[in-house]
Order: sequence, then structure tokens, then C-alpha cells
Amino acid sequence: MSVYPIMLSQTKFTHRDNLNYPFEERALQFGDGVYEVVRIYNGTYYLINEHIDRLFRSAEAVKIKLPFTKEELSNLLNNLLLKNSVSNDAKLYLQVSRGSAPRNHIFPNNIEANVYGYIEDQARNVAGLQDGVKTITERDIRWEYCFVKSLNLLPNVLAKQTANEQGAYDAILHKDGIVTECSSANVYMIKDGTVYTYPTTKRILHGCVRMRIEKFVQDLTIPLNEDGFSVEDIALADEMFLTSSTSEVLPIVTVDDTQIGNGQPGPITRKLQNAYEEDANIVTKKIEQTN
Amino acid sequence: MSVYPIMLSQTKFTHRDNLNYPFEERALQFGDGVYEVVRIYNGTYYLINEHIDRLFRSAEAVKIKLPFTKEELSNLLNNLLLKNSVSNDAKLYLQVSRGSAPRNHIFPNNIEANVYGYIEDQARNVAGLQDGVKTITERDIRWEYCFVKSLNLLPNVLAKQTANEQGAYDAILHKDGIVTECSSANVYMIKDGTVYTYPTTKRILHGCVRMRIEKFVQDLTIPLNEDGFSVEDIALADEMFLTSSTSEVLPIVTVDDTQIGNGQPGPITRKLQNAYEEDANIVTKKIEQTN
Repeated sequence: MSVYPIMLSQTKFTHRDNLNYPFEERALQFGDGVYEVVRIYNGTYYLINEHIDRLFRSAEAVKIKLPFTKEELSNLLNNLLLKNSVSNDAKLYLQVSRGSAPRNHIFPNNIEANVYGYIEDQARNVAGLQDGVKTITERDIRWEYCFVKSLNLLPNVLAKQTANEQGAYDAILHKDGIVTECSSANVYMIKDGTVYTYPTTKRILHGCVRMRIEKFVQDLTIPLNEDGFSVEDIALADEMFLTSSTSEVLPIVTVDDTQIGNGQPGPITRKLQNAYEEDANIVTKKIEQTN
Repeated sequence: MSVYPIMLSQTKFTHRDNLNYPFEERALQFGDGVYEVVRIYNGTYYLINEHIDRLFRSAEAVKIKLPFTKEELSNLLNNLLLKNSVSNDAKLYLQVSRGSAPRNHIFPNNIEANVYGYIEDQARNVAGLQDGVKTITERDIRWEYCFVKSLNLLPNVLAKQTANEQGAYDAILHKDGIVTECSSANVYMIKDGTVYTYPTTKRILHGCVRMRIEKFVQDLTIPLNEDGFSVEDIALADEMFLTSSTSEVLPIVTVDDTQIGNGQPGPITRKLQNAYEEDANIVTKKIEQTN
């Protein structure tokens, strides 16, 4: 598979070299749009309906009128998969902006949304999934509508860059001492057998993998507490992990200078990783169940 | 003058039809950039050095490396003015993004900033300057770094749209009951001869016109209180106004259902409008000094 030679552009397919973006595109000038990243395993979308549902929710929240029904979008995305001859692990990036018009904060009249999407290879992060990752904590300085998967990602970019500069995979964000999520993932703490995470208010992204975690813990009869946890609680955590479509169920073994548990991914995290692999029909299970 | 036929693109001049924006531009996918809007009166930039200084401050705050010195940018912008044969009232839009690279939150290595700018006509809002405008109040849901003039403008877009749908010019934003600024302007209240406004913390844009207001009140020996004011204080205001490069010193005569003062622009607002016109060397003074 070559990397996204054919793109979905304004609901038509186009070669990437032929995409000409208008300079008064509102995504470019205001970040006035929403997006999704969808995981592809063995040439098949994972949780595609959940992602399409969320795209529609995000668009509705910021009053962007989508130029297709859910079913039409689903068909378009399946055709994009076929046209790109995707057969291995990959991801879809899909973006919808309010459209293009002379710059003005106020919604332009009769504007039509601009859509574009492309598929690129995305191998699983086997080392991270196996051994866990290091994280840092950072203040959550984002806007109040983080449930919208919008293109206003500058605070997320800055937090992830800060993490990267400190040799960490991601930043755990906290508001007034309460952990909300990571810069591009939901985050969880396990203590005495219970999984803790932030509630699905407007303050965090309602992750598609997070929704599956809710099901996995139910199937495994693991208690889930969605009242959140604090930065102080982290010191006492038995296990931690984060979830996202690209990161999957990724163990966290270090937060700032604090080692989580014994510094290895814990048994509940392993169970949830296993549940994820089964749910996503991942053929080659690469995570050894060491715990 | 035709509308921006010649643009500044990646520090070169190009015709607008020849601008081809890459789809993995970080402004488009992350809002990862900063911008300025500079007012032009009679073919000359107003407060150009202040705008250039702020662009550099914004870029530094989000770690974008600008591909020019302040002097080089100043020369480029003057050439843009000449090439477009601007002789009347207009405005410059200037945008700098971190650059283009395969999508990843983390700053790409060796990335070069993308720059583009264009000039378009901008007549003065004579009716609004003369009679004042209506506003509404809205919760300030923006991120914590509003001092950065960034491309993450979705909350501003939503607030201004809400105002527009209610027949208002702009929304006065408030956080925990304290007025911060408008969706694209600084805002002020006058009570018993003193001008009140929000301090230049990270929570608001440090407006270039706001900086001039600080000088004007000093020249006119009008007391300025930069401790801010609350939504509740508005009911008791004698006068109100907002400032920005496109709005100038614009009287506010209504906030939600509250009439400000006698419903006409007040005497201190008129003095500041007059100071602005003198400062900007506006040849034709169009605001009648009725108060």
C-alpha cells in the first residue's frame, strides 16, 4: 500500500497531488472543523460506526452541517479503503470544516462543508503495549468543550511536545488537581481492583476505545468508577493505562518521577489489552500475557 | 484596488490563484499557527510595529520559529502594500503556521513555517462608531492562553455567531462572572469617570488598540482601572466600548436587555474615539462629536 495516494476530498476521490486547498478555508484560519482518526486492522475499520456517530455529534455541537448521511459516509469510507487497496494495519484521518469563504468569524451564508480524508500505514506500538510508557503531568489549559473533536488542537500539541522533550509518550492533563485525560488519549488509574477515570462531561473527549473499556470491564466484572481521580492519587496507583484509537490500551509505568506499581504493566491492564485484541479481531496477538 | 490579487506566501509574493496549500499543513489540521490583522488607513499601516511585536510574542509563546526578522517582515509587508496598490482604507491578514509535515502532534524536525498574508478593503464602520452597537454576554469557554493570537478560534467563532443570531455585534465574554473581553475585541466599562478593563494576563489578547487606549487615557488624564469588572457591574455602567483593529473604539449601548447610560455613546468614549482618529491620522473624521 502506498501512503494515501487517493483521498476523499469534498466527498469526491482525488489524487493527493490534485488537492488544492483554498486559502480562505475556515479550518486553516479558525480551526473551524472537526475530525476523526479511525484504526484499521487487517484492512478493516475498527469501531467505524462509533467514530461516524461521534463525527456527527461533534459537527452538531459546533453547528457544522455535514454533506452526507451516516450511511453515505460509511459507503464513502469503505470505497476509500478499497481504492487504496488497504490490507494491513493502518489508520484513516477524516476532517470536515465549515467550508471556505472570505474571512469572518460569523458563519457565512450558504457555506458548504469541506471534507477530506486519507489512509496511511499505522503499525501497532508493540514495544509500548508490551512494556508500558512514561508520562508527565501538565496543567489542562484547553477550552471547555473538549468533548468536541475539533481542529483547535494547539494546547494538545504543546502538551505532547513538552512530554516528548522530556522523553515521555504523553502528558496527563489535570484541571485544579483533577486528572482529565491525556493530550490525545483517555487515561485511567487502577487501585485495589477498581478502574478510575474522568466522567464523560464536556471536559474530555468521549473516546471510542473508552466506550469499549466500559464494556470490557463489565464483561470482566471489574468495578469502574467514573468520578475521576486526582494527581495526588497517582502516587498510590496499582496500575495506570491510557486509551486511544492509535495507542490502543497502553500501559503507563511512570508518571513524572513516580513509578506505577512495580514498574511493569499490571494484571488488569493486561486483561483489558486482551479484551481489546479480541474485540478488534487482531489476528496476530503480539502482547505476551506476562502478568 | 482589487481584493488581494497578490499574496505574501511563504515569504514570497504570489497571485492568489497560484497558492496551493498542502493538505498536511499544521494550521489546517491543528490550528497550529498565529496571526495578525493590521488596519490600513489611506494606504498606510496603523500600529504596524505593535502588530509585528505581538506576532513575534505569539510565535515565541507557542515555539514557532519565524523565518524573518522584524525588519525583514516590515519590509515584506510594505512591499505587499505597494504591489497591491493600496491607497484607501483596508486591512492586512497575516498568518504564520508551524509548517507542513505528516500529521503528528509533536513538532516535526526541521520544519519551516508557512507564511501567508493578503490585503483587502475595509471601510470604517461609520454607523456603529456613531451610534454604538448592541452586545450580548456569553460564558468565556476559551483556553487559558488567550494572550496568544492563535488560529484556535472556534470558541470565538461560536460566540460571535451566537451574538449575530441575536442581532448583536459581538459577545462580551465572562469567566466566573468576571468580564474578560469580547470574541474579537477588548472591552471596557466607564463608571464615575474611571475606565475599567481586564488586566493583561494570559487570559485575554493584549490588543494593539488597547495599548493605545492606555496612552490616550493618560494624555486625557482619565483614570484607568485594570482590575477588571463583573457582569453585575454592567447594569451600573455609565458608558461602555470595545476596541480592536477592525472595530476601532466602538461604543456599546446595549448589553443583553440592559441599556448602557442613556443609550447613546458617552462623552469619555467620544474623547477616546477622537484620540484614536488623531493617532491613526484619519483624514476624514466621520464621527460627529455629539456628546
